[in-house]
Amino acid sequence: MASPPVTKEAALAFGRDVYYGHGKIEILPKVAVHSLQDMAVAYTPGVGHAVREVQARPEALSELTAKDNLVAIVTDGTAVLGFGNAGPRAALPVMEGKATMFKLLAGIDCFPLCIQARDAAHLIDILEALEPGFGGYNIEDVAAPACFEVVRQLEQRVAIPAMHDDQYGTATVIAAGLINALKVTGRAAGDIRVVVNGIGAAGTATIDMLQALGVGEITAHDKAGIIYRGGDYPHEHWRRMAETTNRDRLQGDLATAMRGADVFIGVSVANQVTPEMVRSMARGPIVFGLANPEPEIRPDAALAAGAAIVASGRFDFPNHCNNVLAFPALMRAALDTKTRRVSREMCLAASRAIAAEVPDAELAPDLILPSPLSATLYPNVAEAVAREAVKQGLARVDPGVGAVAAKTAHLRRLVQERQRSLPAHPPGAAAP
Amino acid sequence: MASPPVTKEAALAFGRDVYYGHGKIEILPKVAVHSLQDMAVAYTPGVGHAVREVQARPEALSELTAKDNLVAIVTDGTAVLGFGNAGPRAALPVMEGKATMFKLLAGIDCFPLCIQARDAAHLIDILEALEPGFGGYNIEDVAAPACFEVVRQLEQRVAIPAMHDDQYGTATVIAAGLINALKVTGRAAGDIRVVVNGIGAAGTATIDMLQALGVGEITAHDKAGIIYRGGDYPHEHWRRMAETTNRDRLQGDLATAMRGADVFIGVSVANQVTPEMVRSMARGPIVFGLANPEPEIRPDAALAAGAAIVASGRFDFPNHCNNVLAFPALMRAALDTKTRRVSREMCLAASRAIAAEVPDAELAPDLILPSPLSATLYPNVAEAVAREAVKQGLARVDPGVGAVAAKTAHLRRLVQERQRSLPAHPPGAAAP
Repeated sequence: MASPPVTKEAALAFGRDVYYGHGKIEILPKVAVHSLQDMAVAYTPGVGHAVREVQARPEALSELTAKDNLVAIVTDGTAVLGFGNAGPRAALPVMEGKATMFKLLAGIDCFPLCIQARDAAHLIDILEALEPGFGGYNIEDVAAPACFEVVRQLEQRVAIPAMHDDQYGTATVIAAGLINALKVTGRAAGDIRVVVNGIGAAGTATIDMLQALGVGEITAHDKAGIIYRGGDYPHEHWRRMAETTNRDRLQGDLATAMRGADVFIGVSVANQVTPEMVRSMARGPIVFGLANPEPEIRPDAALAAGAAIVASGRFDFPNHCNNVLAFPALMRAALDTKTRRVSREMCLAASRAIAAEVPDAELAPDLILPSPLSATLYPNVAEAVAREAVKQGLARVDPGVGAVAAKTAHLRRLVQERQRSLPAHPPGAAAP
Repeated sequence: MASPPVTKEAALAFGRDVYYGHGKIEILPKVAVHSLQDMAVAYTPGVGHAVREVQARPEALSELTAKDNLVAIVTDGTAVLGFGNAGPRAALPVMEGKATMFKLLAGIDCFPLCIQARDAAHLIDILEALEPGFGGYNIEDVAAPACFEVVRQLEQRVAIPAMHDDQYGTATVIAAGLINALKVTGRAAGDIRVVVNGIGAAGTATIDMLQALGVGEITAHDKAGIIYRGGDYPHEHWRRMAETTNRDRLQGDLATAMRGADVFIGVSVANQVTPEMVRSMARGPIVFGLANPEPEIRPDAALAAGAAIVASGRFDFPNHCNNVLAFPALMRAALDTKTRRVSREMCLAASRAIAAEVPDAELAPDLILPSPLSATLYPNVAEAVAREAVKQGLARVDPGVGAVAAKTAHLRRLVQERQRSLPAHPPGAAAP
């Protein structure tokens, strides 16, 4: 399930040399227009009928426009991958890459919005104003703690779901991977100690999810060292964490945190973990080094140091614990049930469904998570999340049992059909 | 060149029953992704290389992303078609229709932004913040006088062109139609009197363009009656107009304005002109009733009342004087020359190129404008506009003589190829 490393040349060529123009996405008409009559229907005076219909029946907007399947991938560029505050321009290639994944895997039309925002309030104000044209927001690469405020405010102010991918997506996949890693190594959640390194958006949400899964003990670590009760922390989410983690009141550096731990989960930056630290962990340690694009420790180095299971966020290693396994299905379910928010319970339902995609008989140290190429993964996960939304009373529409899975599978087939007319990678001729 | 009327059923079905989902546009990956290796290149860790490249060389954003061919079709819904302040939601079907036209006719990827803006300052603030992801803005259906301020401010604040379609697009096509209508009826611009009804964005820009073309005398009329020097007007653009039009200081209603005029140009609302008013005009009158979707006077009624040439904004009548003849090529040229603004001279170059697409030998009372189905129109017009941008020193890039025409033709062919995989209108099966 791994693939060769990605060279800079291959990565840049992908955006630069596509069959026309540049970048990874294009916006196409859904229906052919060949004649003046087609134009009269698709454009004017045809659109006048649609304007009148929406004025008379606001809900017609869902029937007559692409809105309900259209998600903005939103960033201010303050926390791009492993690059930190790279700004909205440098973030654009990431957002385009994400848009291609959403469409291919769950049939969702996604548009990148890279916003030069002054602060969280400005970002929220802009997203509130842009609501009319979107069915959902995927908040992406916004630094903590602003990202918490953005999601919280949007849940109050707009009627469409705002999912923070770094929180919900990453935490959901980590939980899925951990469920199966515990099965493979014969551990119970209640008996383990987990170190989470990097207490930004992803780390905070991961700790919440692991606590909901019943993990016995968590040690949180960030630049300020191990988070402990009584420490002086600037952020409300760190203070909350100091209250609910670190039962033994450890203090000190990452090496201290990792000594004797069963599981390391890194959602921080490259090269934080040494082989010595892995050797200091409990027997058969589980190492998730998820910093992107360079992990906290290279998977081969972690294995050499005795790790029983290693996961990374990259597609070019086994056990790619990447949020791409979660976000397309979470958003598909949120759109199809018209929820206003994506709840922790919906994420947990996704975690369990993702984990269940690897049959027990196939589970292995290098196979704890399903492949994003799986044909059943996204339909099944979207269905599980949708049922949870209905169960919780968050769904404003109940599509019926099985409907979300069927729709997801249908949309994936249609996108694959359209993909057939595209050049294979590496791409062919460029524009003249 | 006319087509049958468009029924409400056909228009609504077009948005509702497309082959999957709803609406008229979808966002697709440009390159096929079939394997984990493809995912590693298109998404992570591949995008990390692109982030670093843009950080090192800001201009790489143009090479590696879709930005430079991506235009936001922006509206606050304050002046939708003939519907007035319909709001950003009801405006969405129009923006989607426009996006399909931009792509089909000039290969431009367009995304509708329907913005719930508090006022012009708010709209400008949002568009300034969204600049990183776009190559241009097409401002659409924003009421006057706010629309003037929006374009003026954006020209100062962002480095991408902001074209106000109702100003530049509509005025450009009206000027093109008038050039040929004068040829057909044997008139010279300097000798005629033109009545312009509706002094919003389109009307104001039309008067500016006609003055630049050398039209001898213009009478402007709006809800307050004929605009005259000494009148008390709330808007700066009306006061300016009072100084530069209406040489004879006419006062009164539209019937008074039209008496003896050679040309009527309506960019107002439905049913403003009676057959009596047409009969009161000079011999062989020219009537442009461009209100959408219902014109100021029905074309058949105007012809019956003695009009020599009648044009409307609709595709289901001959002489469809619709801004779709102009905006795709204007924006194509602006993008390819990287201008910061679309100048009046660029619009005039477009008007002359549009008019020239109908050979003199084919000009006729019911053929004063080329068809939007013409294969040569958009390449030729975009080329003419690009050369004017270079000549004026507005181009930040000179693509070279002939390059913009060749690129436009190439992009149109590629879109047409992709269209082949689409169902014909009326569309076929819907989603399950």
